[in-house]
Amino acid sequence: MAALDLITPAGGGTWRFPENEPLRLDSGAVLEGLEIGYQTYGQLNADKSNAILICHALTGDQFVASPHPTTGKPGWWLRMIGPGKPLDPQKHFIICSNVIGGCMGSTGPASINPATGKAYGLSFPVITIADMVRAQAMLVKALGIETLFAVIGGSMGGMQAQQWAVDHPERLFSAVILASASRHSAQNIAFHEVGRQAIMADPDWRGGAYAEHGVQPGKGLAVARMAAHITYLSEPALQRKFGRELKRDGLSWGFDADFQVESYLRHQGASFVDRFDANSYLYITRATDYFDIAAAHGGVLAKAFTGARNVRFCVLSFTSDWLYPTAESRHLVRALTAAGAKAAFVEIESDKGHDAFLLDEPVMDSALAGFLSSAERDRGLA
Amino acid sequence: MAALDLITPAGGGTWRFPENEPLRLDSGAVLEGLEIGYQTYGQLNADKSNAILICHALTGDQFVASPHPTTGKPGWWLRMIGPGKPLDPQKHFIICSNVIGGCMGSTGPASINPATGKAYGLSFPVITIADMVRAQAMLVKALGIETLFAVIGGSMGGMQAQQWAVDHPERLFSAVILASASRHSAQNIAFHEVGRQAIMADPDWRGGAYAEHGVQPGKGLAVARMAAHITYLSEPALQRKFGRELKRDGLSWGFDADFQVESYLRHQGASFVDRFDANSYLYITRATDYFDIAAAHGGVLAKAFTGARNVRFCVLSFTSDWLYPTAESRHLVRALTAAGAKAAFVEIESDKGHDAFLLDEPVMDSALAGFLSSAERDRGLA
Repeated sequence: MAALDLITPAGGGTWRFPENEPLRLDSGAVLEGLEIGYQTYGQLNADKSNAILICHALTGDQFVASPHPTTGKPGWWLRMIGPGKPLDPQKHFIICSNVIGGCMGSTGPASINPATGKAYGLSFPVITIADMVRAQAMLVKALGIETLFAVIGGSMGGMQAQQWAVDHPERLFSAVILASASRHSAQNIAFHEVGRQAIMADPDWRGGAYAEHGVQPGKGLAVARMAAHITYLSEPALQRKFGRELKRDGLSWGFDADFQVESYLRHQGASFVDRFDANSYLYITRATDYFDIAAAHGGVLAKAFTGARNVRFCVLSFTSDWLYPTAESRHLVRALTAAGAKAAFVEIESDKGHDAFLLDEPVMDSALAGFLSSAERDRGLA
Repeated sequence: MAALDLITPAGGGTWRFPENEPLRLDSGAVLEGLEIGYQTYGQLNADKSNAILICHALTGDQFVASPHPTTGKPGWWLRMIGPGKPLDPQKHFIICSNVIGGCMGSTGPASINPATGKAYGLSFPVITIADMVRAQAMLVKALGIETLFAVIGGSMGGMQAQQWAVDHPERLFSAVILASASRHSAQNIAFHEVGRQAIMADPDWRGGAYAEHGVQPGKGLAVARMAAHITYLSEPALQRKFGRELKRDGLSWGFDADFQVESYLRHQGASFVDRFDANSYLYITRATDYFDIAAAHGGVLAKAFTGARNVRFCVLSFTSDWLYPTAESRHLVRALTAAGAKAAFVEIESDKGHDAFLLDEPVMDSALAGFLSSAERDRGLA
């Protein structure tokens, strides 16, 4: 995507910051000439009080309600965004931006390093969830918005929503956190490490400099995606969806995909490679592994949120999510409450696993709609 | 290991069958000149009624109570085998053989195909759990044993123990099945498929013919092992053992192993490559994925065990095992009971996950000891 110096936010594109507005990262590194790919839906109202920022998940992007430019697939949260839906462009100004480190228009390891004229590759600095939020805060300000009506995110998006509340509570009226956690567990880190090792084991990764060689570590990235994908679904959902169903009549007595679930996973791996950058996968998984909100506050999560006691929170979890189990959401809600913030908590009975937040879950829709309506009244929007 | 034509079973070695005793496989293929690597402990008594066959798990081997010839590590079930332990060489004649398809002395994909003079590689026929058991039954017979006092196995070993009861109930007095299942679930297959894809994605796999090229797909095999290893441990066990502990003071801000759990997984992957053959991993995981005892009996598990109503069963499961959850063991016990067999069931409270059957679980030791003592009395051994 060509970088554009947009002067109007309508619709979105790529926002390029001038060099005197660099992004200072947690690692100490500085990114100059920061670019942020983003999309918007709806219009900012006169008092700029109707802006909602959606934070995307690990492999998500800004095309939350528009066709994906590479795959042509519909926006990934269309079920939540549209006229009459919880997020309604007729009343909300909805923003979604690609995280830094990503590969859909925001500065990331595939971007050209101005110092060398070549793709960053592994010379790109390691980023954190707080860095992603810092970049979003710059974009939101550049769009002329002082305070967000809401920040909303599922999974890694929920990590960003939490980080917004910790780092910029005064710029936030409400926050919705779905299927997320306040720090990565050992098992979370372990699964991500498998994915990273799969990518780095691919000889086409070339120490991260694959772009210079005109190749990409597609096989490694596909394996990483396959492993991760299993963690997005519950065991019962996989069983219900595929069980031991065969692709053909009878077994192949070989190593072709015999079972439907093998076919499905292979497809997930292969199609991911078409739309995602392997180094971005390394950097973004690293950011989530480093994520641990309490760590910077003496290990006490509630302390992190003391500045956010005026923010209205809504925390949603799904019973069959084993990637970020409900207990993690409970832990967050307890901390928010201890910090003095209002926190609604909805645990949704579902067998769909972690990905439930992207799927057909009517209770989630009504919970989100109810929470936002109430917040709109408090904000004087309704 | 050199193939030996052993005439006495004492101690073990490699048993080579004459060409007129081929192994007929479920796929229809035939393996001639079958070799089986095995170990024995103790002495067969006069009426040959004290023999116990231990069936090993996916990446296990026959060195159940002897140092591993490659790694030098102590036997993998020493805690269960020894004087005064549940399996006691002073009273039992204990046999453990490497499964066919394996790489520790039994015929497998790394063996020389007599038809070509080269390693089988992918020309090795796909095998099943029933094929493994068929080979074991040939070995047991060759050792002069008509009836086993017990067959015992955990995980994939438990699948073999079940298959013994289905295919050779008249040659079995009792069977112990630990942390196992009667068929692979969609999630089980999915994790194995990730491992196979990781191996086959490694260019050094060379379509399975890596031996001819003097290489091995070590990186792919290590990734496969890492992914599988996560499924062997429970989330709480990983959290307790590693949490977010760092390897060094502070983060590396790179892709070195920052967290202890990363280091641990990398070590698991790297050390596995030293002792295991990548093609064996493909074949043995395939065998477990194909495993579905009920399938050949109209989908009714109890029907599979109708011939085994005189076999005494002991089924053990662990509460935190998410690879083969307790519900699978319950399902088996219900089927055994419906088939008219005596089945003891012990669900052990443990947070160690699937690998608990290999670890320090005193309740498992006493349950196994109690079951075997009782069976010994019934058998007239005690």
